[in-house]
Amino acid sequence: MQVYLDNSATTKVSPGVVEIMTKAMTEDYGNPSSLHNMGLYAENYIKKAKEQIAKTLHCEEKELLFTSCGTESDNLAIIGSAMAYQRSGKHIITTKIEHPAVGSTMKYLEELGFEVTYLDVDQDGIIDLKQLEDAIREDTILVSVMYVNNEIGAVEPIAKIGALIKEKNPATLFHVDAIQAYGKFRIYPKQDKIDLLAVSGHKIHGPKGVGFLYVKDKTKLKPIIHGGGHQRGLRSGTENVPGVAGLGQACEDIYKNFDENIQKMYDLRDYFIGRLQEIEGVSVNGKTTHENAPHIISVSVPGVRSEVLLHTLEEKGIYVSAGSACSSNKPAISATLKAIGLSKDKLESTVRISMCENNTKEEVDYTCDVLKEVIPVLTRFVRR
Amino acid sequence: MQVYLDNSATTKVSPGVVEIMTKAMTEDYGNPSSLHNMGLYAENYIKKAKEQIAKTLHCEEKELLFTSCGTESDNLAIIGSAMAYQRSGKHIITTKIEHPAVGSTMKYLEELGFEVTYLDVDQDGIIDLKQLEDAIREDTILVSVMYVNNEIGAVEPIAKIGALIKEKNPATLFHVDAIQAYGKFRIYPKQDKIDLLAVSGHKIHGPKGVGFLYVKDKTKLKPIIHGGGHQRGLRSGTENVPGVAGLGQACEDIYKNFDENIQKMYDLRDYFIGRLQEIEGVSVNGKTTHENAPHIISVSVPGVRSEVLLHTLEEKGIYVSAGSACSSNKPAISATLKAIGLSKDKLESTVRISMCENNTKEEVDYTCDVLKEVIPVLTRFVRR
Repeated sequence: MQVYLDNSATTKVSPGVVEIMTKAMTEDYGNPSSLHNMGLYAENYIKKAKEQIAKTLHCEEKELLFTSCGTESDNLAIIGSAMAYQRSGKHIITTKIEHPAVGSTMKYLEELGFEVTYLDVDQDGIIDLKQLEDAIREDTILVSVMYVNNEIGAVEPIAKIGALIKEKNPATLFHVDAIQAYGKFRIYPKQDKIDLLAVSGHKIHGPKGVGFLYVKDKTKLKPIIHGGGHQRGLRSGTENVPGVAGLGQACEDIYKNFDENIQKMYDLRDYFIGRLQEIEGVSVNGKTTHENAPHIISVSVPGVRSEVLLHTLEEKGIYVSAGSACSSNKPAISATLKAIGLSKDKLESTVRISMCENNTKEEVDYTCDVLKEVIPVLTRFVRR
Repeated sequence: MQVYLDNSATTKVSPGVVEIMTKAMTEDYGNPSSLHNMGLYAENYIKKAKEQIAKTLHCEEKELLFTSCGTESDNLAIIGSAMAYQRSGKHIITTKIEHPAVGSTMKYLEELGFEVTYLDVDQDGIIDLKQLEDAIREDTILVSVMYVNNEIGAVEPIAKIGALIKEKNPATLFHVDAIQAYGKFRIYPKQDKIDLLAVSGHKIHGPKGVGFLYVKDKTKLKPIIHGGGHQRGLRSGTENVPGVAGLGQACEDIYKNFDENIQKMYDLRDYFIGRLQEIEGVSVNGKTTHENAPHIISVSVPGVRSEVLLHTLEEKGIYVSAGSACSSNKPAISATLKAIGLSKDKLESTVRISMCENNTKEEVDYTCDVLKEVIPVLTRFVRR
């Protein structure tokens, strides 16, 4: 049995997405900047994708920018706004549990002279609104908080954060890394006072190599990639038409049967956690309730190193992640797991299970049966 | 009859490329950073693409970085090296006929305090080696010259430029925008003393949304996109595995039957130019010999505005470009055409014809027949 439980690392691309991409590559392959019909047909794919995405966010089509990935979306949001607004201040607020696409970008801005405040999180990965409120200053130009943490599935109180920021300093921008949240939550930037929102295609059965950034109308950004002035000068380079078309389709699809799919995923998660808790030596990190994201389960098995558990499961056809799988083969100690205060033995023995709407009860049963079988052996082996 | 003569804007993706991309999206869809087999299979696509590309450049696989497009490759080369070497100097040399991916990036560096020298070109678009030699100083950290100009197909003397730079100042890096040259010329960076070389996928029947940058071993770069440390920290973000796989395949394919294809394109270009020169009121810009690139013909028809000619041809199923089609729908006066000294009436009445190895003599005949028919009508119309 093959059980893919690494959907927060990446997902299988859906047939409908492949179909539209193939059409854009072999039939309507023009350059959207070309003035003739072949260019127009290509541009229509981009327009359609914007319509599809705008519907899911309740935003305007002109508020969408296409990028090459979630990481670029985060970079453009953070560096782009920092450069555009640096005359108003050089203070930025973020959290200790951001994805490196945000975390490393903050380090880069610190090198350039920006001051960054890193908010703590509690044992479930949630920030403290009071600490945020106290941190917002007159020279705070940006607050960046992820919607769903990629390692434990913690859901930050985005609407409350948005309201709080705009109350304390209306000029402060609010950026949300929604890469693990989009498709799992209904996200309406205007309602939640979000100015910038980053999304990636390949986490929602879309293609790798494409993402988008929602940029609230009238928000200023400086580009990080310069050239022919594509996308209103904010992101030069010939648009990845097939990728954008695939992304648009994936966005439309992920919000079809949304309530049903999310309910199914929560039911499966509840069942999964219930079965995991029956296994001796296994603990689940973060909230086990529906306050958490529906697709991520962080599991610690003290005494069994993450990589050992990962490869043992792999031998049985089960694919999970050690760490977040976003950090390019480097199994480093997770900042998120440290920030929620996990003990050292748990830090080194945590795997992430991440589901999509296509996972089944049979797969969960198989996985738990395997875990029940291998964990006693692995812990015995380690103790010798 | 449909005649696509806008191959320098973008090309049709080949079936072999679509096939490998589909496989990478639906079967081997893992994240290359994942530690399990699904990750390994994905990583293998990247390794294979590096092998395919390295063979064409006679370089090492570790000297290749994947980006989201030619524009990003140029940006990473120029900004990345400027930031890495700014302590050695802040002087850069480029030409007046670069693509905006280079030209706009230079403007950005000027805003940051770098000094940029823009070299002139002659009436055929070729730089003056003496002017280059005189321009190279002790604090010159970078020279950036395109291999083939995207509007008129001028071929710069890259090997001579490389030798000259390293003779005058061995510490000066040499960046080459090879986006219109790769696949049309055999390019060996080591032989030509090139340190950085930018290539795009979609100009060679590969996919949009992917490109590569050759970075000579030991050349330092600072990243422009920060995150999980992918690609040795130089380009974070989950690799676009399907795009990279498609790019690798396209690179391998474009150098198959290379001599035959290039000869065919030069023969077709010679024939095309011969027939164009028979038409009254038509002139060809740049060199008409084989010193020019094999695929680009710049044609002026004084008295007929570029867009008018473009749309007239389009009605007959012939697709050409007004300007370079890389500048996002903005029909601005071309810097290249100005730099080669075209008169005002020609500046506004130039179209670019760009071929690939699949264009035929029949298509050329049809196009020339149409031009012969419409130009007298259009010029009469304009003169009224």
